[in-house]
Amino acid sequence: MAISTKPPSGMRDFLPAELVRRRFVVNTIQQTYEKYGFVPVETPSIENLSTLLGKYGDEGDQLLFRILHRRDKLVRALENPEVSEKDLADLGLRYDLTVPLARLIANNPELPKFFKRYQIQPVWRADRPGRGRFREFWQCDVDITGSKSLIAEAEVCSAVAEVLLNLGFSNFEIHLNHRQLLKCLIKAAGIELENEAITLVAVDKLDKIGAEGVEKELEQRGISAAQTTALLKLIQRPCGIDETGELLRLKNALAGNDEAVAAITQLTELCLLLNNSKAAGHYSIDASLARGLGYYTGPIFEIRSSDFSGSLGGGGRYDGLIGMFKGSEIPAVGFSIGFERLLLVLEEKGLFGTLACGPDVVICHFDDVADAAVLEAASNLREHGVKVEIYPETPKLGKQIAYAESIGAAWVAIMGASEAAEKLLSLKNLTSGEQQQLNYKEAAERINRR
Amino acid sequence: MAISTKPPSGMRDFLPAELVRRRFVVNTIQQTYEKYGFVPVETPSIENLSTLLGKYGDEGDQLLFRILHRRDKLVRALENPEVSEKDLADLGLRYDLTVPLARLIANNPELPKFFKRYQIQPVWRADRPGRGRFREFWQCDVDITGSKSLIAEAEVCSAVAEVLLNLGFSNFEIHLNHRQLLKCLIKAAGIELENEAITLVAVDKLDKIGAEGVEKELEQRGISAAQTTALLKLIQRPCGIDETGELLRLKNALAGNDEAVAAITQLTELCLLLNNSKAAGHYSIDASLARGLGYYTGPIFEIRSSDFSGSLGGGGRYDGLIGMFKGSEIPAVGFSIGFERLLLVLEEKGLFGTLACGPDVVICHFDDVADAAVLEAASNLREHGVKVEIYPETPKLGKQIAYAESIGAAWVAIMGASEAAEKLLSLKNLTSGEQQQLNYKEAAERINRR
Repeated sequence: MAISTKPPSGMRDFLPAELVRRRFVVNTIQQTYEKYGFVPVETPSIENLSTLLGKYGDEGDQLLFRILHRRDKLVRALENPEVSEKDLADLGLRYDLTVPLARLIANNPELPKFFKRYQIQPVWRADRPGRGRFREFWQCDVDITGSKSLIAEAEVCSAVAEVLLNLGFSNFEIHLNHRQLLKCLIKAAGIELENEAITLVAVDKLDKIGAEGVEKELEQRGISAAQTTALLKLIQRPCGIDETGELLRLKNALAGNDEAVAAITQLTELCLLLNNSKAAGHYSIDASLARGLGYYTGPIFEIRSSDFSGSLGGGGRYDGLIGMFKGSEIPAVGFSIGFERLLLVLEEKGLFGTLACGPDVVICHFDDVADAAVLEAASNLREHGVKVEIYPETPKLGKQIAYAESIGAAWVAIMGASEAAEKLLSLKNLTSGEQQQLNYKEAAERINRR
Repeated sequence: MAISTKPPSGMRDFLPAELVRRRFVVNTIQQTYEKYGFVPVETPSIENLSTLLGKYGDEGDQLLFRILHRRDKLVRALENPEVSEKDLADLGLRYDLTVPLARLIANNPELPKFFKRYQIQPVWRADRPGRGRFREFWQCDVDITGSKSLIAEAEVCSAVAEVLLNLGFSNFEIHLNHRQLLKCLIKAAGIELENEAITLVAVDKLDKIGAEGVEKELEQRGISAAQTTALLKLIQRPCGIDETGELLRLKNALAGNDEAVAAITQLTELCLLLNNSKAAGHYSIDASLARGLGYYTGPIFEIRSSDFSGSLGGGGRYDGLIGMFKGSEIPAVGFSIGFERLLLVLEEKGLFGTLACGPDVVICHFDDVADAAVLEAASNLREHGVKVEIYPETPKLGKQIAYAESIGAAWVAIMGASEAAEKLLSLKNLTSGEQQQLNYKEAAERINRR
């Protein structure tokens, strides 16, 4: 056994029972998104590195899987004694679904002005594998391009909330913030504009590293403890305060700052819209929410749940990204569900019912029955919509029945010479043990009756 | 516009209308395969190169997309002045679905003895793109492992035939041959054993390059014209001969050769089984069928159609491949549908009906209606199963309606202040122009009535 039979690190095989659960979730997401008028697109797994590089920050660039040049191109690259990574690849694997969407929008000017698309595909990151974190994992994105209206924000939040509710999961909250508001809060804390990006990255980790961790990280970057304390006081929500109170607190803290007031007004309007959507009762204002990615420009969202530490998905408005590909700006807002984490939570909470997988019935047969007759019987049952597996060999009946039980079939259909002569089947229910001789049509009806 | 917005060469974006057709075909394949008791698996896009290399022949190895090492591993590799391709990558993209299945079977000894799996996923080959040939393309594989019974061959052929028939495509024939029979025919033509592999590869191209091409190619390899002529006479089917006659002709030509007779007996039995399956009337014996891949050991199949030059799919028995991973042998037989080519044929023959995509209704609204009221109306319609898009802004009504028409919606629901006050919608049919004021429930019922 010279060759390893395991998938590579951070990659997974999906066996039927798990795949059926994944499909169930995918179908629920698709059906829900389609009710909101979203249409599906798919993009290639491989993108030009020029499309991907510089969109995810330095850390993201390092996590890209790059495709090695082939043949002449590789030979030429290796002739250079100073050869480096950038000379060896100009293609890479998709890192997320947002950048490919931006490229696709720019490439297809004939698309509807308000393009509402959903996309459910794997992405790849050369990250350290961990709980719910893989190197190949699925994302489920929903985006609306072409409008600055808050209806777009409300629609993606409502669609995501409805997905979770339709999956039977209600213990979640969509945290809402606004990138401009957060920037104003950073400024109000006395932090210089040049340190804004560093501060955003540190605040993004607040959940993981706590207030002390943020203070420490910012201190190393030359931001004073007083400034960090001021910022944390501004962004952390006081206990027992409701949404209206929190919005008022922020408005007072930033009184006179037009940009901040505009952002707070947007959040206030968004809350009103969400009260009339499926996200009603499932959102909260969280001025400490930062979101890591650089491209957000307006409201930002993140799904949190006490059933999972970390985020179950997130998104926001990114009005500049498509313009990087198209030249002219197209506003956009999107929300991405962390599919693997959602699956983990649904499994842990036992929210998957019994999902059938595999044949309804296994045809067991004896040596004295022609294989052609067995195929004919199988064909007949299948025409009536029954899922049929034929036991391919003819050992003792007990062995055939034990196999049918082991794969979870509910029935066996036994064919001996007498059954075959009259085109009958002895249909046996593997739970009750009940057995009856029936013709093909009757047998199919009996199986379908459940 | 610095960055290209096109997908890389040989890769494709799928916009909604095309994706809906692809999904329709995938769903038909899934439903059909499940009726045969097949269960789904998925394997990772990235495999260890040690899994992939040496399974597809030298040409296949050269078509693999390899993943460039990262960070330290890359730095170390580039320190070596003699660095070559093999030092720069140990991962590659999936080239087909058969080798990953063999690895998966070896890695999961708990799987059913007769594992009937289907798998529909993309594969990647750094091939020259052409008509129906891409660098990222989908394969639809169905395989049965664990049995040497011809029932397995018959089941995969029947399942594939039923897929084509269910898609409305009946102009196809499954060509059948047997790897052992073909080897005996090569020997009977006087060609040395050491030239067998070369001859198989040349015969595989008979369809593309014709008899003269095969003669020329084999001559260059030192095989005499007399030998090639003898081989072509043996493998080419005389005009007007039926299956029984063709099997008899082959039997006579190889009389006394036990191995050949055993292979012909298997083909004869397989024909009997197929006559009782969905492949009845859709198969023929073709002793010139070779199949390129080295791992086949028994019956081999290929789908041909006068609607497409080349193959629409193929497969066969490969009893040795899983043993390369597992140590002990597990017999197996499989059939792969060329998804992209099938799609091309279905499109050319107009076999796709109208496949709906996008919202049923667009809600058009005026400035004097609160956005929250619009969201409430949308939410109501969606609860009744209607696919609803909200026009996100409030330009003149004509513009909103023109947009709804442009995206193919059948209805618009107009909300002015008077409708909003009474929770009504003015529902307009965009085909007939008919318009009615209805409450949300009535509007949903009207839309769903179609």
